[in-house]
Amino acid sequence: MTLIAEPRSMHFAEPLPLRSGASVRGYDLAYETYGRLNADRSNAVLICHALNASHHVAGVYPGQEKSEGWWDTMIGPGKPVDTDRFFVIGVNNLGSCFGSTGPMHTNPDTGRIYGADFPVVTVEDWVDAQARLLDGLGIARLAAVMGGSLGGMQALSWTLQYPQRVANAAVIASAPNLTAENIAFNEVARRAIVTDPDFHGGHFYAHGVVPRRGLRIARMIGHITYLSDDVMNEKFGRSLRATPLPASDEAPSPDAVLAAAGLGYRYTTQDVEFQIESYLRYQGDKFSEYFDANTYLLITRALDYFDPALRHGGNLSKALAAATARFLLVSFTTDWRFSPARSREIVKALLDNRRSVTYAEIDAPHGHDAFLLEDARYLSLVRAWFDRIAAALEAKA
Amino acid sequence: MTLIAEPRSMHFAEPLPLRSGASVRGYDLAYETYGRLNADRSNAVLICHALNASHHVAGVYPGQEKSEGWWDTMIGPGKPVDTDRFFVIGVNNLGSCFGSTGPMHTNPDTGRIYGADFPVVTVEDWVDAQARLLDGLGIARLAAVMGGSLGGMQALSWTLQYPQRVANAAVIASAPNLTAENIAFNEVARRAIVTDPDFHGGHFYAHGVVPRRGLRIARMIGHITYLSDDVMNEKFGRSLRATPLPASDEAPSPDAVLAAAGLGYRYTTQDVEFQIESYLRYQGDKFSEYFDANTYLLITRALDYFDPALRHGGNLSKALAAATARFLLVSFTTDWRFSPARSREIVKALLDNRRSVTYAEIDAPHGHDAFLLEDARYLSLVRAWFDRIAAALEAKA
Repeated sequence: MTLIAEPRSMHFAEPLPLRSGASVRGYDLAYETYGRLNADRSNAVLICHALNASHHVAGVYPGQEKSEGWWDTMIGPGKPVDTDRFFVIGVNNLGSCFGSTGPMHTNPDTGRIYGADFPVVTVEDWVDAQARLLDGLGIARLAAVMGGSLGGMQALSWTLQYPQRVANAAVIASAPNLTAENIAFNEVARRAIVTDPDFHGGHFYAHGVVPRRGLRIARMIGHITYLSDDVMNEKFGRSLRATPLPASDEAPSPDAVLAAAGLGYRYTTQDVEFQIESYLRYQGDKFSEYFDANTYLLITRALDYFDPALRHGGNLSKALAAATARFLLVSFTTDWRFSPARSREIVKALLDNRRSVTYAEIDAPHGHDAFLLEDARYLSLVRAWFDRIAAALEAKA
Repeated sequence: MTLIAEPRSMHFAEPLPLRSGASVRGYDLAYETYGRLNADRSNAVLICHALNASHHVAGVYPGQEKSEGWWDTMIGPGKPVDTDRFFVIGVNNLGSCFGSTGPMHTNPDTGRIYGADFPVVTVEDWVDAQARLLDGLGIARLAAVMGGSLGGMQALSWTLQYPQRVANAAVIASAPNLTAENIAFNEVARRAIVTDPDFHGGHFYAHGVVPRRGLRIARMIGHITYLSDDVMNEKFGRSLRATPLPASDEAPSPDAVLAAAGLGYRYTTQDVEFQIESYLRYQGDKFSEYFDANTYLLITRALDYFDPALRHGGNLSKALAAATARFLLVSFTTDWRFSPARSREIVKALLDNRRSVTYAEIDAPHGHDAFLLEDARYLSLVRAWFDRIAAALEAKA
């Protein structure tokens, strides 16, 4: 049975105080829900999204077959997070460009589009906003919170900010903070956007332009870091892009024949020569058509800033002492952006606090992207973990 | 004793045919030599450079104490490549921007600056040009050819293109070709340059501008890939950039005090927050002031194209059958750009051909940059290898 998704929105009149000292007022959060909230409101699962995703987590929109949610392999009727048993909530974060209030919207204090003036938001701020959404939905306590990558940071932060409101937390392909290398990649992407002449200091909307060049570069960099070296070699290797033979009555030159077969170099510095180049350019072009440049800056900064151990002198074990949830941690062997070693840091800190932790390192070739892909072992593991939660809920009912 | 360097130049009237089918005529190569050529002209060592280097390999220019050559730790009197025993030649490659003919020079066929019309050059073309330089210097056979990274590819190519002219070859931190991931990083850097509005299709010289934005991004990306994750964490970690307290008679705010100590976030998406950002921006700025954008495209493309196994159906062992030199291969454990596995491919292919190979994997934390740094084990190893060569030469004399 196809799961039909329906986007909703909740308005919040009361200002949300942010970690930066600023606040946002009169904002909306876009969200979707799947499945039914049970009688004692105890079966809610919140899904937190990463950089390039939204509240549209699962299912399709009516009449749009290809509109599957970004984690549709994971969530739905009979799937690992089973919407026949759980009430699943997807929420678009504040500052995003997919429906919730963000830089493209009007600042009620000035009557002008926020642009670069949208306040800096942190993982902690998002969790606060999500908690208010749950208040609005009448959900006091989550059966589980779950997220991958930046979404995993939110899931982890939930257990620290609202320990009494989270029974279980699934933190997938995540980290307790970014490494210097991760911050470096984010910074290069941001510089590409900010130094694009079409960025206009973040107020490009008024100029009727979009800093597409910068967004393209940002996405290309991102894409390289989401994939593993292995999967890139397997998918593309050093394969050349084949070139169609020119339409002509004359016999083509031997060089043209080789190029048409993708076998000969064409010796060019600016045109596509290798398939990997063509792939990256395509990904960059596509991204630049729908993603907001200011949102990109905000979301990468939220990644940079997340660091729960900071206020505990860098001691992650102390930082995680507040958490009372039962945890599932999953990492992927070829993920060099959020490597297994980073997940193990979280596992160790939780075990130092004698918390319940299930940890799995999935041997997958796909790099960081693996957390979004179909992998039988990964999906069975998550299924088993949620089955236990569902069984406990059903035993109580 | 300080080694004094003196840049020279050799002019070549005869056209050099290139792999692309194009040719370059009336070109100059900048070079330097150190030490003395012995009586039977048998003690010459050619050093090939990588992306961001030149013919200025060792020593200093008169009156400029800080002008050490880029491999001054390796080459000089009493150093591993001992200029008291060897006649060492550094040469700037065709298409570079440090003295040899390149995109910034005038095309004799049109009377205009080459710009983006400078023909695509390959590792093989560079080796051909270097061979002509040796002809001009009256050197029939090299005691050794040596290079790191892209320079290592040239050293390897020497043994295939001119096996009779190379007795020994040192291939450091190199690879038999680039992986898809390497090509991908090069492509993002090129796109940043080419899509900079100041690039003007590669003819920016006429517009009196330089595509600095693109060059900065290119260099930042490059810099991340030259370092290891470990050394970045050790050098910068998540340290914040301290901010001077504003000059004021009033007591500073607690937030300002924290920021001054580099302890508090300032919550900014466009300003520097972490030290790693400041470091990368500085590297990008510096590079954009001296490096030519068209040269960047040419040199990264030469890297992409190098693949001696291509004409042998991808069989590296077959490709290296032509080599007769004795080899030294060195790789560095944390080099993820030219990983030890890639050096081992070369070692295996040479051993398949029963060639003489010394191979060392140096346990160094510095990533790809390690080949340029002072590391006692690395330097002793190279010293021992060159000592053997020098001893053999001296025994003959």
